[in-house]
Amino acid sequence: MERSPRTVAQAGEDAVLTAILEVITPHNDAVAEQHGQALAVGPGNDDAAVLAFTARPSSGNTQPTAEVVLTTDTMSEGQDFRRQWWLGPGSTSVAHEPAEEWPMDVGTKAAAQNLSDISAMGAVPTALLVSLTLPADIPVDWVGGFFRGMVRACRAEGAERCVIAGGDLGSGDTISVTLTALGQAEGTPVLRRSGAQPGDILAVAGPLGRAAAGFELLEHSSAPGHSTVRSAEQEQLWERHSELIRDCRAAQQRPDPPLTAGPVAASQGATAAMDISDGLIRDAGRLASAAGVSLRLDDAVLEAEAAQLEPIAALLGRDAQAARGWVLAGGEEYALLATFAAGVGLPEGFRRIGEVLEHRDGVPRVITEHAVSAGGWSSL
Amino acid sequence: MERSPRTVAQAGEDAVLTAILEVITPHNDAVAEQHGQALAVGPGNDDAAVLAFTARPSSGNTQPTAEVVLTTDTMSEGQDFRRQWWLGPGSTSVAHEPAEEWPMDVGTKAAAQNLSDISAMGAVPTALLVSLTLPADIPVDWVGGFFRGMVRACRAEGAERCVIAGGDLGSGDTISVTLTALGQAEGTPVLRRSGAQPGDILAVAGPLGRAAAGFELLEHSSAPGHSTVRSAEQEQLWERHSELIRDCRAAQQRPDPPLTAGPVAASQGATAAMDISDGLIRDAGRLASAAGVSLRLDDAVLEAEAAQLEPIAALLGRDAQAARGWVLAGGEEYALLATFAAGVGLPEGFRRIGEVLEHRDGVPRVITEHAVSAGGWSSL
Repeated sequence: MERSPRTVAQAGEDAVLTAILEVITPHNDAVAEQHGQALAVGPGNDDAAVLAFTARPSSGNTQPTAEVVLTTDTMSEGQDFRRQWWLGPGSTSVAHEPAEEWPMDVGTKAAAQNLSDISAMGAVPTALLVSLTLPADIPVDWVGGFFRGMVRACRAEGAERCVIAGGDLGSGDTISVTLTALGQAEGTPVLRRSGAQPGDILAVAGPLGRAAAGFELLEHSSAPGHSTVRSAEQEQLWERHSELIRDCRAAQQRPDPPLTAGPVAASQGATAAMDISDGLIRDAGRLASAAGVSLRLDDAVLEAEAAQLEPIAALLGRDAQAARGWVLAGGEEYALLATFAAGVGLPEGFRRIGEVLEHRDGVPRVITEHAVSAGGWSSL
Repeated sequence: MERSPRTVAQAGEDAVLTAILEVITPHNDAVAEQHGQALAVGPGNDDAAVLAFTARPSSGNTQPTAEVVLTTDTMSEGQDFRRQWWLGPGSTSVAHEPAEEWPMDVGTKAAAQNLSDISAMGAVPTALLVSLTLPADIPVDWVGGFFRGMVRACRAEGAERCVIAGGDLGSGDTISVTLTALGQAEGTPVLRRSGAQPGDILAVAGPLGRAAAGFELLEHSSAPGHSTVRSAEQEQLWERHSELIRDCRAAQQRPDPPLTAGPVAASQGATAAMDISDGLIRDAGRLASAAGVSLRLDDAVLEAEAAQLEPIAALLGRDAQAARGWVLAGGEEYALLATFAAGVGLPEGFRRIGEVLEHRDGVPRVITEHAVSAGGWSSL
């Protein structure tokens, strides 16, 4: 590999991933060749990896194996959440009795985003491991609340079998949480991005755009100098949309992904799946690339979904284009994107948002009539 | 749980762990009862957790399962390493071509400390997952070097079957690395801390005190204002002990734990094992507590090990007591502590450092003649 003076910020996430794969793919290939320890699904393409573990007792000539689905993800204060979302503008120090919701929600979100990756592989989550880095001034109660939040995520439909297997505590300048989730597909093959076929229906389970709208609502109301004094007319508007506002904030602060959707999709013959963590357009592009297909989005359907969020855009002084951006490019959504053969009927909870086409000129594309200004969320 | 206004720093690691277990143990118990998904080894006591995964094909009436050993650990810049250790005093910005050794060593150490936990359970590591948090100004080459360091750790004896299964990239203010390691015991039960029996021999594989001596050497030579100008006499002393100095620094920067020691101990009937990550006295205390025994250290043996490090103490202007502290309380050693029934003979690579006694008055103790000033290393 040529030495590159570029920083990770200059190079961008895809170039960094390429540099990583250049190192680990030859290693993994060598292990597979020399020790027969092959990854069923390796790094680079899917929401999680899959590795086979040998089991006992063996049955005659065949050595039974358990295929374990694995994923890991980090959430950091300042990058992924701000304590002001819960504590209000200007809060930088930890109160002696911090709002119970803050650690609960962080625990729930950290768990949910990892559980969502397991579900996106068509698998059922069975264990979480956690590594928690905490500043010295965090109250012990915060830690208890964080773990109660993880337990709440494990009690959601589809995660009932998930235990919290262990972890690690460390100190640092900011709160940082890394979770690892493990799971297993039950009686179905794991779902991969690469399985989408031209002619398939593109479908989604779970809301689109709400977490992004929630992010802007939270940033708005926790901004320094934010005032809650509103005109009677403004107040009436906020009041009229209070349920939607609550839903959007909740989608950002404590997401509740459709965890049964992945296993249900797998059992009903889905050809591919992935969760939407970096925005619909960007993640659909990854699915298209993995499968070597193009995806045409149904603009009318997505337009209707965006229209539902226009009141939030208006409250924030934004136009309809903002709502469209949330639906098409909003990150941390954890909705499940999946493809199904046409004519088989979509499982409950899924709705059609487009179709799979053969790619043209060898270039997988996501086709939509709308220009999207933001390119979705990237972690680097 | 009563609300506590204490911070994690005031409460200390053990109290925080207790608060965590109060939340997750009832959850894990409920999952075991309602879904039969029980942890073979749960959080709180051992170096890693153990969880059974069901396998296919099943063999007649018995459902084969694979017992997977799991652990996770975080390393952060400023807490666990300083870039000045590689780049020299005063280096705070990243050079365009940073010393290749820096990322390589960080990758090796992050992997080694997780692989050591798997070995300490008597298991063989089979996969690593990594979550990497990087400041924007880190060069792409650093990332490649980090993964080459992980590959180097996987090529060490005992880790040859370990693949790098996947990971996650994120941005943050400081470099932070969380690894998760998975493994399996091969034909032996996993080794637990609780199995030590009165009458057993206490043994160790791997050096003691070198990582702690290395830490002080690195801090010494990377301190602001550090001068490499020495008198001829001093220079001669540093030169005479250059090999030991190199070994100690390497033990801190890129540890090479005895990864085969755990599986070998398990196959030769060890009754208990754990790795030494927080200092011999402190970790021996944990083993004693888990097993409900006391441990008497062989002071003459440990004194002899400390004597080997006295030249390093002298170079740093410290006395013999410092060398004793490194051996008895030095953290991040990743030596393997194990107990064996008396009379069976120790496996190759192990040496006797004490014995297991019945505890007195119901209080497990670590008995040594030496007062130890530092209580070992705690992550909180």
